Amino acid sequence: MASASAESAASLKGSCKECQNGEAGHMATFKASDTVVELSPTHKAKPDESELVFGKFFTDHMLTIEWTKAGGWQHPRIGPMHQLSFHPGCSALHYAIQLFEGLKAYWGQDGQVRLFRPMLNMKRMAVSAKRACLPSFDCEELLECIRKLVKIDQDWVPRSDSASLYIRPTFIGTESSLGVKKPTSALLFVILSPVGSYFSTGIKPVSLWADTKYVRAWKGGTGDCKLGGNYGATIYAQYEAADLGCQQVLWLYGDDLQITEVGTMNIFIYWTNEDGEEELATPPLDGLILPGITRQSILELSQKWEEFKVSERCITMADLLRALKENRVKEIFGSGTACVVSPVGRILYQGENLLIPCKEDFPPLASRLVKELTDIQYGRTPSAWSFLL
Amino acid sequence: MASASAESAASLKGSCKECQNGEAGHMATFKASDTVVELSPTHKAKPDESELVFGKFFTDHMLTIEWTKAGGWQHPRIGPMHQLSFHPGCSALHYAIQLFEGLKAYWGQDGQVRLFRPMLNMKRMAVSAKRACLPSFDCEELLECIRKLVKIDQDWVPRSDSASLYIRPTFIGTESSLGVKKPTSALLFVILSPVGSYFSTGIKPVSLWADTKYVRAWKGGTGDCKLGGNYGATIYAQYEAADLGCQQVLWLYGDDLQITEVGTMNIFIYWTNEDGEEELATPPLDGLILPGITRQSILELSQKWEEFKVSERCITMADLLRALKENRVKEIFGSGTACVVSPVGRILYQGENLLIPCKEDFPPLASRLVKELTDIQYGRTPSAWSFLL
Repeated sequence: MASASAESAASLKGSCKECQNGEAGHMATFKASDTVVELSPTHKAKPDESELVFGKFFTDHMLTIEWTKAGGWQHPRIGPMHQLSFHPGCSALHYAIQLFEGLKAYWGQDGQVRLFRPMLNMKRMAVSAKRACLPSFDCEELLECIRKLVKIDQDWVPRSDSASLYIRPTFIGTESSLGVKKPTSALLFVILSPVGSYFSTGIKPVSLWADTKYVRAWKGGTGDCKLGGNYGATIYAQYEAADLGCQQVLWLYGDDLQITEVGTMNIFIYWTNEDGEEELATPPLDGLILPGITRQSILELSQKWEEFKVSERCITMADLLRALKENRVKEIFGSGTACVVSPVGRILYQGENLLIPCKEDFPPLASRLVKELTDIQYGRTPSAWSFLL
Repeated sequence: MASASAESAASLKGSCKECQNGEAGHMATFKASDTVVELSPTHKAKPDESELVFGKFFTDHMLTIEWTKAGGWQHPRIGPMHQLSFHPGCSALHYAIQLFEGLKAYWGQDGQVRLFRPMLNMKRMAVSAKRACLPSFDCEELLECIRKLVKIDQDWVPRSDSASLYIRPTFIGTESSLGVKKPTSALLFVILSPVGSYFSTGIKPVSLWADTKYVRAWKGGTGDCKLGGNYGATIYAQYEAADLGCQQVLWLYGDDLQITEVGTMNIFIYWTNEDGEEELATPPLDGLILPGITRQSILELSQKWEEFKVSERCITMADLLRALKENRVKEIFGSGTACVVSPVGRILYQGENLLIPCKEDFPPLASRLVKELTDIQYGRTPSAWSFLL
């Protein structure tokens, strides 16, 4: 952990609320120092950067950590990438007792591999685990296990300032009986996938279908956790959007049609608000919204600039329609680990196409955010947000 | 299929809307007649009826049917119960692309094994598959595959008029890449588990926690389909109910606190309604409610009696509170495949215990419904709802 940067080191120190550890006499976690490593005798050919479809190729190794109620956490294992074997009654397959995370490792021109604010992923994963009734673990220990894994497969981190190595921690219940209950066994595993850039391929602003026919998340649900069920349920709507000539769904909520997320991304609106203020706004973390790490970073970066108002606030379709009519909207974009930011060019709403200003494919604020964030991610700008491998 | 009863035979004939078959030149289904059977060389010891915990024991065989986008449906396979092997990127594990069904096989004193309205399960499964973006299949063919499987393991159907063989069809996406999209490969499998009766163990009326902190389903969501994500997300609430001394969650919805479901069951309220009518009421199939087969059967049975009003209607907590205050509530019970009906004795709401009339452990209407339904299920009453093995 000597290479941990300022933020990461600070985050790793002391107790972690999300880990639920520190209970008297109960240290219910695995330890990275117990990791058993078995190197793969063979190495797969690495795809060219031009072939990198998201999440299609995987590296030579994976991390697995088993848990049972009776025996607690077992030693972490890093071994060759392999098929997983489950009892057909496995609770991850029947009741979606499952969650995941997504973060990336970036190769810098200084020869260093960096992760971007990985403790935020670990902590969000611990929150998701609690909601899914999966066992708790120490976030610091998991991050150190992931660091070991990425280190072993570091040749898979694309030598490119536009591609990266996607890290997919996954945590599932493996109970083999059919009662709907807390699982008595579970598996945490991490796989790695080299991924290309959305931008190198010249992405265009996306078009959105805004409708209330499908609702992504709701108060009292699990929209603020990264549970598998939040994602599978959206695919049907996604294809209906495609049938209507749109690329993503703009997720609305409630009778007042609050704008919540876009596709699998958080959403930002940059505009002159109702009070005539220049404002970058994103929906608040009210239980519906996934607390995105790119979202948080955009908020923190733009707050530091002190150039315009930065708000977590509710925005309704009526607010947006009025602002569009009054030419107050400057940019709309989604944010996420996959693409950093993704500008929105058009919204199909009640049969009408709302055109969002997008003079160039990448409007100025979106471009600036991509630059500042990727400069940090690829180590061109020193930052406490970087976690060195 | 010669043994199919009237209802089943009728259901099996002709086109099935839910199957989405019959598209021109496109018969996208497996065929039961193609089933490859490999009998298990060994047989597990069968548990005593007294040991039958729900979904803990499984029979000697299982059914698997693979699908790929490129190759379509493969031949169904009945073989020894075995572990399933998946790529760790499997979309069922990351995005909960998964659904299931639950039905039972009953041993009658006439030596016949019967299923109960199984085509309703097949059709609901086809609807769930569509919502989950999994491929369509022919309901009749799947039922025939299941018939073959149960036939092979028919010695596992408990020789008891209170136990049964639970049938768990499951359908999952097995895509091994991480994009959130329609899977290009999938696996349909069916496992069998001998289960005991809730009633033989002398179940007491259940206590419910009624609160809006957690919401099971919502308009625009997937509450009316049997997707895994609907179930895993409820477990956390279930344990909070237990902490408050209650056995199940009474799921409420909306600002007017509509009563929707209870635990994993549909809910019925038997009362004298606001207009002074004797009425058996259950929430309508408005997109929030799972279309339970026991629910449907209770509605159809009690409608046939013509003894009281039978309604699918919205009931709010305010409606219930007023009725309790005015002593108009006769019974409340959940309904489902596992227990047939489960009477409710107490509801914890806003810190107050609402006592539901339950003079005996099994109030009269609940008892009558259990008797009529189990008489059909165990073949004591001839019925078009019985599907003979």
